[in-house]
Amino acid sequence: MTGLLRSWIEAANAPDCDFPLNNLPYGSAIKDVAPHLGEGAFLHCVVAIGDMMLDVTTMEADGKISCGEMAGIVLDMGDWTNFMALGPETWKNFRSTLTDILKENSPHRTLAEPYLVPRHGANLVMPFHISEFTDFYASRHHATNVGTMFRGAENALPPNWLHIPIGYNGRASSVVVSGTPIIRPHGQLKGPNDDAPRFGPSARFDIELELGAIVGQPSSGPISVAEAFENIFGYVLLNDWSARDIQAWEYQPLGPFQAKATATTISPWIVTAEALAPFRVSTPARDVPLLPYLGESAPMLYDVALEVGLAPEGKAETIIARANYSEMYYSSAQQLAHHTSSGCPMRVGDLLGSGTISGPERENRGSLLELSWGGKEPFILDTGESRSFIEDGDTITLRGHAAGNGYRIGFGECVGQVLPARR
Amino acid sequence: MTGLLRSWIEAANAPDCDFPLNNLPYGSAIKDVAPHLGEGAFLHCVVAIGDMMLDVTTMEADGKISCGEMAGIVLDMGDWTNFMALGPETWKNFRSTLTDILKENSPHRTLAEPYLVPRHGANLVMPFHISEFTDFYASRHHATNVGTMFRGAENALPPNWLHIPIGYNGRASSVVVSGTPIIRPHGQLKGPNDDAPRFGPSARFDIELELGAIVGQPSSGPISVAEAFENIFGYVLLNDWSARDIQAWEYQPLGPFQAKATATTISPWIVTAEALAPFRVSTPARDVPLLPYLGESAPMLYDVALEVGLAPEGKAETIIARANYSEMYYSSAQQLAHHTSSGCPMRVGDLLGSGTISGPERENRGSLLELSWGGKEPFILDTGESRSFIEDGDTITLRGHAAGNGYRIGFGECVGQVLPARR
Repeated sequence: MTGLLRSWIEAANAPDCDFPLNNLPYGSAIKDVAPHLGEGAFLHCVVAIGDMMLDVTTMEADGKISCGEMAGIVLDMGDWTNFMALGPETWKNFRSTLTDILKENSPHRTLAEPYLVPRHGANLVMPFHISEFTDFYASRHHATNVGTMFRGAENALPPNWLHIPIGYNGRASSVVVSGTPIIRPHGQLKGPNDDAPRFGPSARFDIELELGAIVGQPSSGPISVAEAFENIFGYVLLNDWSARDIQAWEYQPLGPFQAKATATTISPWIVTAEALAPFRVSTPARDVPLLPYLGESAPMLYDVALEVGLAPEGKAETIIARANYSEMYYSSAQQLAHHTSSGCPMRVGDLLGSGTISGPERENRGSLLELSWGGKEPFILDTGESRSFIEDGDTITLRGHAAGNGYRIGFGECVGQVLPARR
Repeated sequence: MTGLLRSWIEAANAPDCDFPLNNLPYGSAIKDVAPHLGEGAFLHCVVAIGDMMLDVTTMEADGKISCGEMAGIVLDMGDWTNFMALGPETWKNFRSTLTDILKENSPHRTLAEPYLVPRHGANLVMPFHISEFTDFYASRHHATNVGTMFRGAENALPPNWLHIPIGYNGRASSVVVSGTPIIRPHGQLKGPNDDAPRFGPSARFDIELELGAIVGQPSSGPISVAEAFENIFGYVLLNDWSARDIQAWEYQPLGPFQAKATATTISPWIVTAEALAPFRVSTPARDVPLLPYLGESAPMLYDVALEVGLAPEGKAETIIARANYSEMYYSSAQQLAHHTSSGCPMRVGDLLGSGTISGPERENRGSLLELSWGGKEPFILDTGESRSFIEDGDTITLRGHAAGNGYRIGFGECVGQVLPARR
């Protein structure tokens, strides 16, 4: 495993920095950094490095960096959609160029310096156009926990679970970037002892700790797992906000719908598959063999340590869960290949949620549903307060990183505060 | 109810013409009809009238018609997405202008004549950009039939069905326009007596007779049923191709996924809500009252007679089902309001499938699953052949119209031929 690649931006060389030269994640910022491109604030493609970010939209417009053939017009929209569409060769070359510019003792330092802006206070927005959003259910620990609560330990895993990367289509219009406030949803609620449903605010509003894989290349028919792996551009942290009480009443027979439609928050920095390459691990051993179309030709998960923080309004945060992406039963590549198996076309900007990431221990549970065991075992925060589900004013923060030798590939933060329901 | 509005285009005045002046549906055509806009073939917004269509993109470019403030640049992309975004006042004014131009004895006849092209042989494409696709499950007859097959007559309707417009998110990338060939999908299949699933072509490939409602205005939070009704721009025929064997194995616990992702076909002409206004009817009487947020303030279904034709390759078509949209339990407006109840943002171009439209009698069943009662009672075509599910080479055609006094508001045809599975 390579060690830290040193940069002339000193903060990037700190061992606990999320964004060393080895990472170079891609974001979009609203910043008035290039007044000569027009008036006021614009959307710019930016690359995080240490405590700074490099404004590559302006660099491209000024002819100081190129994404290949389409000189000057790839990054001008200010998000990474057009860049992703150019494909893996471009992805690789551009990253190589950035590394060359930002490495210690680079001869290109003076070229880049005018385009560096502090990350602090940056107004980061959605880094790509989300075409469609699919969410999966791929942690065996999570599926077993939820299944045990709902159907008992004997029938915890549905019969198809060990064969199919179970997934459902979510709602792209509800995906928001980190920092967007989340309004507690209303919905139809019916307790087991109620005669009829009522319409009211969700009382069992929850999170799901996930990674989101971003499809960077289109496909028009079935593709293999190996092809799917090549088509994934990068990853973000993903919190799939979930109203458990709405879900319980609505989900039969066609699956979750409004319970999952309020919001899904993603972190603002796309960590590329290339940056994560040193941290690839295999999916776990199988009780039953997978059908050949789902076979992994190489390790396609990543060793990414994750944590969930919960901070009541105005109070200190408690880390309520820690888990690792390497514990998933299906990789994003397997999920994407399965997604295309029916002939379903995929497009640049499709977002695939990994499914809630839980591990084997109590502290590894990636949802409050599991942490409080369906509300039956409230857990205690460092502030002394207890929680079963999210309370108004609570801020949830996801964090994650892959740990290298003297450096880390960090994801930054994925943050959302829950506001009271409307009216 | 108004009678036929006569046009100077004589074919539009025939009582069985789908596209009289009362209709004026909106489509998009690839035609080399305006070489002065550039080279070769272009995408043009067209309006069907009798056996002709009016090229309104070229009219707008020539300054002969306007969609309001944004003169000349609303229809230039060649589909109706930007037009829809302008809102109901523009929709109404533009339709009024078209009616004025095309009515019998119009003084504007000479203005319009250069922009008329024959509909015959037109290359019609998707008339709007589909933002996201949601499919519902709103026919009581259909839900009862399917439920009876799967769970027995006693438990046919799920407990939530009379309270919630049950729906799930489908896949916008898989929606295609009428005429697109449909390749039989592969998927995971497991019969009740099989030990393990296998991967192979679907043997129970099916259709669903539906209407699709097109959302023409965005919303960012919950909206009322009345607001939802105003936001619906128009309707198309919709065939939601469904692999029943894939669905049976995959759908627990998160709902249908790859079974519904091969393709959904829509008809090429958007019939506007305004054209259908004379045919509004109420949803049926309720066994249990709806929650107030789903209350209809006025009739919001339409009396639209529908039929399904099946033609084996190279052979005559049999009409295998007839049903009416007026029999649905929930209107598209109720579905859209429910869709927003969680705060889910809706966007211009969202497509909502009504759900399979079935009526009370055997001949009213809008899917082969119901017509052949799960394959147990194959039905006989006029050619003498029998069918349980779709065979390779079969062409399915949906048709529909609202019947006025001496005229009809027709939808045209929604056609798809099923081709053999890949390899």
